[in-house]
Formats: sequence, structure tokens, C-alpha cells
Amino acid sequence: MNAPTDPAHLVPTVAQRTVPAALIDALRERFGAQLSTAQAVREQHGRDESPFAVPPPAAVVFAESTQDVADAVALAARHAVPVIPFGAGSSIEGQLLAVQGGISIDVNRLNRVLAVHAENLTVTVQPGVTRKQLNEELRHQGLFFPIDPGADASIGGMASTRASGTNAVRYGTMRENVLALEIVTAAGEVVRTGTLARKSSAGYDLTRLIVGSEGTLGVVTEVSLRVYPLPEAISAAVCSFPSIEAAVRTTIAVIQVGVPIARVELLDANTVRMVNAHSKLGLREEPMLLMEFHGSPTGVKEQAELVQELAADHGGNDFEWAHTPEERTRLWTARHNAYFAGVQSRPGCRVVTTDVCVPIARLADAVLLAVAEAEAAGLPYFLVGHVGDGNFHMGYLIDPASDAERTVAERLNHALVERAIAAGGTCTGEHGIGLHKMAFLPAEAGAGAVELMRTIKRALDPQNIMNPGKIFAL
Amino acid sequence: MNAPTDPAHLVPTVAQRTVPAALIDALRERFGAQLSTAQAVREQHGRDESPFAVPPPAAVVFAESTQDVADAVALAARHAVPVIPFGAGSSIEGQLLAVQGGISIDVNRLNRVLAVHAENLTVTVQPGVTRKQLNEELRHQGLFFPIDPGADASIGGMASTRASGTNAVRYGTMRENVLALEIVTAAGEVVRTGTLARKSSAGYDLTRLIVGSEGTLGVVTEVSLRVYPLPEAISAAVCSFPSIEAAVRTTIAVIQVGVPIARVELLDANTVRMVNAHSKLGLREEPMLLMEFHGSPTGVKEQAELVQELAADHGGNDFEWAHTPEERTRLWTARHNAYFAGVQSRPGCRVVTTDVCVPIARLADAVLLAVAEAEAAGLPYFLVGHVGDGNFHMGYLIDPASDAERTVAERLNHALVERAIAAGGTCTGEHGIGLHKMAFLPAEAGAGAVELMRTIKRALDPQNIMNPGKIFAL
Repeated sequence: MNAPTDPAHLVPTVAQRTVPAALIDALRERFGAQLSTAQAVREQHGRDESPFAVPPPAAVVFAESTQDVADAVALAARHAVPVIPFGAGSSIEGQLLAVQGGISIDVNRLNRVLAVHAENLTVTVQPGVTRKQLNEELRHQGLFFPIDPGADASIGGMASTRASGTNAVRYGTMRENVLALEIVTAAGEVVRTGTLARKSSAGYDLTRLIVGSEGTLGVVTEVSLRVYPLPEAISAAVCSFPSIEAAVRTTIAVIQVGVPIARVELLDANTVRMVNAHSKLGLREEPMLLMEFHGSPTGVKEQAELVQELAADHGGNDFEWAHTPEERTRLWTARHNAYFAGVQSRPGCRVVTTDVCVPIARLADAVLLAVAEAEAAGLPYFLVGHVGDGNFHMGYLIDPASDAERTVAERLNHALVERAIAAGGTCTGEHGIGLHKMAFLPAEAGAGAVELMRTIKRALDPQNIMNPGKIFAL
Repeated sequence: MNAPTDPAHLVPTVAQRTVPAALIDALRERFGAQLSTAQAVREQHGRDESPFAVPPPAAVVFAESTQDVADAVALAARHAVPVIPFGAGSSIEGQLLAVQGGISIDVNRLNRVLAVHAENLTVTVQPGVTRKQLNEELRHQGLFFPIDPGADASIGGMASTRASGTNAVRYGTMRENVLALEIVTAAGEVVRTGTLARKSSAGYDLTRLIVGSEGTLGVVTEVSLRVYPLPEAISAAVCSFPSIEAAVRTTIAVIQVGVPIARVELLDANTVRMVNAHSKLGLREEPMLLMEFHGSPTGVKEQAELVQELAADHGGNDFEWAHTPEERTRLWTARHNAYFAGVQSRPGCRVVTTDVCVPIARLADAVLLAVAEAEAAGLPYFLVGHVGDGNFHMGYLIDPASDAERTVAERLNHALVERAIAAGGTCTGEHGIGLHKMAFLPAEAGAGAVELMRTIKRALDPQNIMNPGKIFAL
């Protein structure tokens, strides 16, 4: 792998394309007050949770309908100008940045839950609906949508990055839970993919081609999802361990014996300390698994007993239970806020986040080496992991003014990714490639596979206007 | 939909492409005894379980390595000659037929299980490994692979048609269970897709683009799969009902409340009668659900009690249990042989099989109308269904010499598909499009989506040599 660790080289140097005044005029005529070229608006749409600084888009269209998106894309296509979809702005790897210039299409006003088919366990939503908003609307019908990246991301963005989160070990990721899409193609045409049936063998799986394509093949304008009955019983427990290794080995055993655990999250002692400080909790400051069990009352009890036994085999302490829904919510909110707890632990810092995912049997080695290297480098970090999937995140807390710290963080990430790929894993379990991981993709997927991706991109987007410069260089 | 029901029009009339003698010579030089042009061998590779009669391929290459496949494709590409992968020969919709001529690449000698990573719950196999062979090799390690189409299909073929079967309700289909692939592209290059990690957000999901592409984008030469620990407890039960509707409504209720049932299969009274005759069983000749529960002993008991309650609400009888593994195997073998039981019930007949899949709440209507129409048409049929997925098969038993019966069967299928699509479902839950359902795809997917598929096909296979003339016309 020749991924550069020098921060100056992290953003591919591609010329900004010109956004002609004629396009801005045409957009203004079509969209009126739905178009903004105000500096503040452009800047807000020109940054995400990634550390990159690139010029903002030339204009922002606030789409209020699929037709708005189609018209914006069609106008941009006429001038060969890039379009970048914008949802919650919570992407991590630079997915939203206008590296080649262009216009941003903000889908936040497309925020309606269009249909809840409770009897089919499916919903159809607009792309600006966020995961929390969806769950608010589902709760009173006894349903929930399990995919939960840390941020309150938009469903369109979650589809585009193939997001997952803490529940993926039991319920899968966006890959498994998106049934159908409506997209706007590079030609500005509206196309539907998939059906509301659970399964289909009808032709190419366009739905899963678009899921995870990070806006490079089309703009997602509607998403149909699987949803689930709220479990009859839910119980959450915390278990602390004498070492990270013991916690990880317990997780591996849980997965290997096939316990249908809903969530199993790892925090190291360091991160528990940050979470305690941030969320005012009194968790034991030791390596910890945070677990949740879904099922019938006896099923949940049985799962928990089995996992407690496996934990005890590895020196784990007795489970501490979150008994009430409120206690459970508090615990999971604290877990979801681990990122912010990390940031708060070093005021003014920025986070360089890693996202490797490895086959489960390789997880202990991957985590232990990552921690040892971070300790040796002396860089502050947090460690959280969706360990049931083999996925974990090191968050290196760097001084944004220090190129040296950035370089160290990128070097650590690089080493981590290299080992994950060698172990049969991936450089990104759930954040996507964006800009930040582009250099890793050829090492992971191989030149042949990347060339297939490029061929598909060129065929579906011949002018390279759909979020260009992401995932791979053309 | 303008799908023709006249059997003379079911196979698109496309000119056979010339297979030049120079190609046969080059193949013979490269492959020696691994090449056959014998009439009997060609004919065996020129038919599948579909009712179409087209000329056989000009030659058959018996590949023994990925390199063999790559070289065969590269040679064929030089002469712009079609290549058609051949596994178990059990495809149903004409996927294997050389409608445009060309050569068949038989992968049956690629029949090794390359790796069983028990600790990761993954395996890697060559494409000619069959599902039963794989499960034989897994059993002594306490693992199993759940995808079970009726036939003992090859894993490569199952990946290519996005197959599923009776366990999909709990374990998903090939879509969810293929982790990674090795393929040979239209240029004869060997490319790997995916990783052995449970999830990844690294670029386009090429794995799922190839899964279900029916050999039109590449030849599958290696498949990595998820496998599962054998459940601690398994119990199977039969429940008979006063009506098909009662059985289907019970199934809908089971899915809606979220019972993690492993299998739930519907047979109508007619089909139970055929199965009894064929497999020498004494099942009550009434509409029947055949179910299986996986989990811990108490979990299985609890699931079964809940389903028994739901069945009783709909007038279902007491469960009859298959207590021993042998009884269970006998029951499921009988279910898997329903197709042959149907065939045996009308000696000399051929089967026209339907394969619609609808959102679960629409299932009762879909099944009841299908049965009513078949009864009204007076055509013998069997009815089996993976009803937990909303998927069911009507098998019309026609006299192969009777164009009239063929026409009636196609008309019934046509009506069934039209309603399934209107209900948000699909013309094929698990068999694929092949030749037989090509006319339905535009109605289901829309012209825009089919055009995206065509664009991908043209880009990845510019000479249109990979199993051409399937899924859509170019």
C-alpha cells in the first residue's frame, strides 16, 4: 500500500471544475429561494466530520421533491458540473466535500415518512428522514428500525455509506435492510430499484449497487426499509473484564456458539473514563462489554445466562443490569456519545477515526495491536467497537494545528488497515471510503475489482458529475 | 405487460452466432481431453429444467482450475463467442441454454471445499461444490449452510441465480450469505470481490452485483459463504388447516409478531396427496404448514407453543412432531421432492413453475387467487410455498405435446405475476429471470432500471459474450 500519511497529500489534487454563471442563473430561475449561494450556507455544506479543508460548493439547492433533485441534476449535467447530495452532514471520510467543485443538493426538506406498512414490516421514507425521527414515528406502532450509526444520520446518507452501528450483529446493516430505492441518475432520470418483497431474483441487484456507492452513481430520493417488531423483552447489561483481550475473546465465543445477541460493544478502560466524565455515569473504569438481548422474556434470560457463563470463563465480572428503559437509554446514549466524550477529553482536538472490520477470529489480535501501537505512539485515543461484527474504531485525538500528530494518527491507521486487509478484512466496516480511504481500496479490493468499479462508474455517469473524486480516482 | 403466452414465442428469436473452427481448434489445443464436442455431451449441457428446446452449445470445456476458466473465456472473447457456465444443470428458467450458440464451461470438476474457517463461521468453495456436499463436509464440525433450493444445486449456480429455499425466512438468501467471490470477467481476467469480514463499506458491492446476474457479467470460480453453528435444538412439526387461507393467515401472523422460525412451508391438500404417494407418507391430506424451529431447547419449545397458539386461532390442528433427526429428514426430503411428486402424479408431464414473491400481508390473496384460477382452468398443479418469505410456487403439470396446455399455464403464470407486481412484489423470488421471465422484467423493474442493467452489462461485457440473451435483450 502506498497510502500517504502526510496530511498534505490526503486530498487528491484534482482541479476544481468551473461552475458557469449560466448554470447558477438557470438554477435560480428554476429554484428561486430554494437556491442559496450565501457564503455561510455554502460553507456549512462544504464540510463534514472529516478533517479535510477544501473549497465549498458554488451553490446549494434545497430540494423539496424528487422532481427538484431530478431538475437540479439535469441542469448540472447540461454544464458537466458535479452534484453532491447533502443529508445530515455527519459523514466521516469526506464524502460531502466538493473536491472538484460543483453544487450541493440538500435533501433535508425531503423529510417525510411516506408509508409505514406495519403488516409487511416495511416503511418507505424520503432521504432526509433521520434514524431517530423514523424510530419516533415507528414506536407507537410497536416497530423499530435497528440501524444506528453514532450520529443521527439521514436515511439517504446511511444508504449511501452502507451504514450499520450497534445492532448490526443481529439485524444486519443497510445492505440487508434496504429493500428498494428511488434514485435520480446522472442523466437526471428518476429510476426505482427493488421491490417490497423480502427477496427477489429479478435481474441485477441495483439496490445493493447503489447502497454504499456514496452518491457517485445517483442521488437517493426515496428508501424502502425493513423494520422489526419491538422485541417482547429487552435487557441490557454491562460486564467489565480484567483485560481488553478477555472482553474480545468473550465476544468471539458468543458469536461462535451462535447466541442471537442484539448488541455487543467494547469500550476500553480509557474510553469508559471519558464516557463517565461526559455522561456523568459511574461505570467501572475497566475494559467493558455493553450488551443487549432481544427476544421473549425466557429467551432473553437464557441468552444472558449463557453469555454470563462465557464471560466468567474469561474472568469477566458479574453483569450489571440496566433494568428500566430509561437506564437502557442512558447507557446507549452514553455509548453513542463516546465520540463526543473523546473530543471533550482533549479540548480543541480533532478526531482521526479508524474503521477496520476483520473476521471474528482475528479480532483479538487486531484490537490488541491497535491499542499497543497507540500507547507506544503516545497519542490520546478512544476505542469503541461493534465487536460482534469484528468492527472497531480507534479515535485518535489530535491537535488540529499539529501536522506531526496528524501524521502519527495516519501512520497508526495505515498499519491497522494493512493488518486488517492481510487478515481477510476491510479498511472500512461502516464509514465508507470517501476521500480518506481511497488509497486503501486498491490494496483491499485489488486492481481488477477497482477497475470494474470504475467501469461501472464511467458507464452510469459518463461526465463524472455524481459526487466525483470519491471512492476512487477516475 | 406484453409477455407472450404463446409457447412459440417464449424463446427470443436471436440469431445463433458462429463458433469458428479456429476457436474449437484453439480450445482443443489448450484443453485436450478436457474439451468435448460429442453430440451427447453437448446436448446434456444444452438443456436444464426449463421447457425450452434450443440447439446445444458447440463444445463443452470441463474446467479444472480458475485458470482453465480464464483461458476458455479469453479464447472465446478473441472470437466474440458466447460462454455459458454449467453447474448442476438444475436451473429452471432456461439460464443454461445456448440461445445464441457458443461454448459451455462445465465447472463440476471444480468441486473442492477450499477452506472451512469454523472459528470465523465462513467457508470458501469452488463453484461446482453442491449444497449437500458442502453440508456433508460441515456437519462433523458442528456447522451448516442453510440455503437449500429444491435441487442439489451447485454453489456457483446458486450464487448466480440468487437462490434461496426453505431456510431463507431465518437465514436469508444467497444475497445475504455470499461474502466474497472470485470471478472470471468477460476479458478473461480473474477478479476477487468482497472480503471475509461480516460487513464492509469499501466501494461498490460487486459481490451482490454478481450474485443473481446469472452468468451474464462473469463466471463464478470461487465462493466464500457464511455458515452457521448447528442449532442446539431443532424441532419440526406439521400442522394441518381447514383451508389454505387459514394456513397462510397463520404464517402472516407468525412473521408479523417476529417469531424467529427457521422454516415455514405451505402445501395444499392436492400437493400433500402427491407427496404422500411419492414419499410413502401418511400426512393428513389437508392444507398444511411444515415448520422447523431452531434454537435452545427452551427457545424452540417457546416458539413452537406461540406458533401453535396462532395456528389454533386460525383453526389449525394440533402439531404433529417429527421427533428424531431421521423423521425430520424424511419430512424435509418429502417436501424437497414435491416437484418430483407432482411430476409423478401425471406421468410424462412437464412442469411450468411460477415463482412470485409478495409482501407478506398480500400473500393470502395471491395464493388464493392462484389456486382459484388453476382450479378454474382445470390444469393439474401442485402448490408449495416458502410462505414465511411471501414466496410460493404453482407447478402446472402440462402435457408437453399440448400447445393448448402450455398456453393455459403461461396465461395463469402471467396473471399471477401481474398481480404480484401490482402488490409490490416480484415475478421471481428465487429462480431468476433466465429466458422465461424476460418479458416480465420491464413491468417489474421499470424501463429505467432495466436500462441501467443493460448499461452495466454493455460496460462489463462489451462483446456480449457472457451468457448472452438472458435476463434482458441487449
